[in-house]
Amino acid sequence: MVARRTARDLRSENRFEVLHALFELGPSTRQELARHTGLSPATVATLVTEFLSEGVLRIATVENNTGGRPQERLTVDPGRGRIVGVDVAETYVDATVYDLALGALGQGEVALDEHENDPSYVADGIVRAIESAVAAGGAEHEHIIGVSVSMPGHVHPEAGVSVFAPNWDWRDVHIEKMLAHLLVPVYVDNPLKAVVLSEMWFGAGRVVDTMAVVNLGTGVGAGIAIDGALVRGTTNNAGEWGHTLLELDGRPCRCGRRGCVEAYLGAPGLRTTLAGIDPEHRTLRQPRQRDFVEAVAEGLAEGDPALKDLAHRTAHYLAAALGDLVNMLNVPTVTLTGWASEALAAHLLPAVRDELPHHVMPGSLPGLTVEPSRVPGNAVALGMAAFTLQQFLNRLGLGSPAGTGPWADRGRGLGPAGLGQQPGQGL
Amino acid sequence: MVARRTARDLRSENRFEVLHALFELGPSTRQELARHTGLSPATVATLVTEFLSEGVLRIATVENNTGGRPQERLTVDPGRGRIVGVDVAETYVDATVYDLALGALGQGEVALDEHENDPSYVADGIVRAIESAVAAGGAEHEHIIGVSVSMPGHVHPEAGVSVFAPNWDWRDVHIEKMLAHLLVPVYVDNPLKAVVLSEMWFGAGRVVDTMAVVNLGTGVGAGIAIDGALVRGTTNNAGEWGHTLLELDGRPCRCGRRGCVEAYLGAPGLRTTLAGIDPEHRTLRQPRQRDFVEAVAEGLAEGDPALKDLAHRTAHYLAAALGDLVNMLNVPTVTLTGWASEALAAHLLPAVRDELPHHVMPGSLPGLTVEPSRVPGNAVALGMAAFTLQQFLNRLGLGSPAGTGPWADRGRGLGPAGLGQQPGQGL
Ligand SMILES: [Zn+2]
Ligand SMILES: [Zn+2]
Repeated sequence: MVARRTARDLRSENRFEVLHALFELGPSTRQELARHTGLSPATVATLVTEFLSEGVLRIATVENNTGGRPQERLTVDPGRGRIVGVDVAETYVDATVYDLALGALGQGEVALDEHENDPSYVADGIVRAIESAVAAGGAEHEHIIGVSVSMPGHVHPEAGVSVFAPNWDWRDVHIEKMLAHLLVPVYVDNPLKAVVLSEMWFGAGRVVDTMAVVNLGTGVGAGIAIDGALVRGTTNNAGEWGHTLLELDGRPCRCGRRGCVEAYLGAPGLRTTLAGIDPEHRTLRQPRQRDFVEAVAEGLAEGDPALKDLAHRTAHYLAAALGDLVNMLNVPTVTLTGWASEALAAHLLPAVRDELPHHVMPGSLPGLTVEPSRVPGNAVALGMAAFTLQQFLNRLGLGSPAGTGPWADRGRGLGPAGLGQQPGQGL
Repeated sequence: MVARRTARDLRSENRFEVLHALFELGPSTRQELARHTGLSPATVATLVTEFLSEGVLRIATVENNTGGRPQERLTVDPGRGRIVGVDVAETYVDATVYDLALGALGQGEVALDEHENDPSYVADGIVRAIESAVAAGGAEHEHIIGVSVSMPGHVHPEAGVSVFAPNWDWRDVHIEKMLAHLLVPVYVDNPLKAVVLSEMWFGAGRVVDTMAVVNLGTGVGAGIAIDGALVRGTTNNAGEWGHTLLELDGRPCRCGRRGCVEAYLGAPGLRTTLAGIDPEHRTLRQPRQRDFVEAVAEGLAEGDPALKDLAHRTAHYLAAALGDLVNMLNVPTVTLTGWASEALAAHLLPAVRDELPHHVMPGSLPGLTVEPSRVPGNAVALGMAAFTLQQFLNRLGLGSPAGTGPWADRGRGLGPAGLGQQPGQGL
């Protein structure tokens, strides 16, 4: 059973591909865009004309080559609109305002008390973070074309619902409705989908089209892209690497299972490991996870022996769990992202790389890279903004004869994710 | 980075899609093929004309509808050629001769001594199994269009090489060369790729396009298809679920790692578990793995208490390891295949299904099915034959203006695997 794409889907994919090429190449001529995308010059010319009339692109420069016609270089018009990407985690809300070229204009952060789980408390945090980012970015409400909110746990993007968030014990919380008063389109998704989209657009995706993006924070998980397609799974729930086993019947995990990777590599898991080494360790007095992880990173820099033991054990867990990911999917590239990764990756990665060959099948090892993500800023917020950008382009495309519905790409394979995923019609 | 398909790739995919539709629908009219594939009637008509002239299809029946034109029903011409699919495992070689419609004509099996690891010993077993199947199927050498050999371990299909086979301690054994005297095209791949292709064509793939096919034998592994595409990984090494962790630092695994799923669920792993329950158990006196597993199945049917304990523990391991697979990929369907699964699935699956909800994330559980595969006969041999059929169609297509190279589909996403994986050109 193979789902077929329509001409409409193809056209939408081609629009993304041209835009994506501009992100990669910078200001480009139509010829350069055709060469980079593999689309025909006629197709590129048609799409560029559409984008210019929609105000999505503008002419950056005109070069007069000897003898030939003037060469126009095109660029995304950053002023065409503003997008807010929001990363909601257990302990904070981080909102960033972007221009249409996905350049960050301003940021706002609100701390969440991880012991509060009322949906209205979290929604209020989201709104305050957005307001703060909008003020910092100097954005005006009428220029905001959409807000994209990443929620931890299992999310149903079509419904705008947080289906299950174990950290807050939520089931079926309707995020989109709770933010309806913002009067802009709201899109909801999961951080694992956001980090892999941002990695495909602005990170490792510039070199490879198959990768895992490992997100380390309170929870842990992996965003997956295979052959240029974001892997969502049948209910948008793929990537729960954090809830695969490190140890059968091991530590209790908050998902209800025992021995999950997250119970060892999530911030509370690090605390558990350290408590087993030195239950009186001073860093354990930090009540908030981010403060605890920051204190661990500082103590490691100072050579604290209990923390060195913690790092040693955690690197062992991480190498083993990354080995599983690589053995399962044979990805050539793993990038690490998330706030806990930012604090600890430098302390863990050398030992992880040393140990990985003991876990990875020999055939999957040559060329394997494990690196901190190079995506600038908050990768979750940026990936979410990219989803909104895709949907905005689709809504604009509606006006054209073969346009796609505004949420046409909400199913599997959103965006560059979806790019290149289905055959055309005819020979 | 998104690889683009050429018009030639698309055409090749469309050829497979028409053929695949005929496997699913049985004898069909051009209209039915167009409706089922989503291809335009003109495209289908062109492809059917090509296939008829190549002898791949023939007209099965002509119906005279009231008033309308006579309706031709088309079918794959089984007599057009013979294909040999070969399943090489640690303990046997099983070869099957198929007609072009992939109907099994005859079978040959040769037992391998699992303690012998000389490549020429194994190659000799392959040749004898092929000869025996060819005799049983009444096939003549000049009708054989290809032989496809599945080898355990890591395989490089483009090179025809067994890169790494831990069971025999092989590295870089050139299977294709060792079989060159057969004077037919030889294709080499891995059983995990074969079982998922056969499942896509003849099993769960008729209902879903995302699935995992779990292969239980001496080794264990999972074939994976996502959105209609076979997941090969960057070096054709994806699906090594057998070498993901069940227990960190647990039982030694023959891959060199400790605690892998295979060390618990492979046939030698079952033996280890039983030896921990009753080291004197009579079934442990069976020196060969298949005899041991058969004896376990018989003893379970008789209610042997030590074997009931073995089944209980093995179901726990299997539920946990399947939970990891589902949490990682959010597949809606898992099928079990392989000789150990054939012997034991009925004894294990009820307990596995009972325990799965304790391992699978709630959002990935609704609608999840775990079933024995319904692919007829040897799923590895059938899947391998399907690879050869795809390549044969590609070679035929070479003669046409936009034909594809004979091995053009050897990279990622072979066949229905590859079907539907890339966008067309232009709008
Ligand atoms: Zn868990
Ligand atoms: Zn192993």
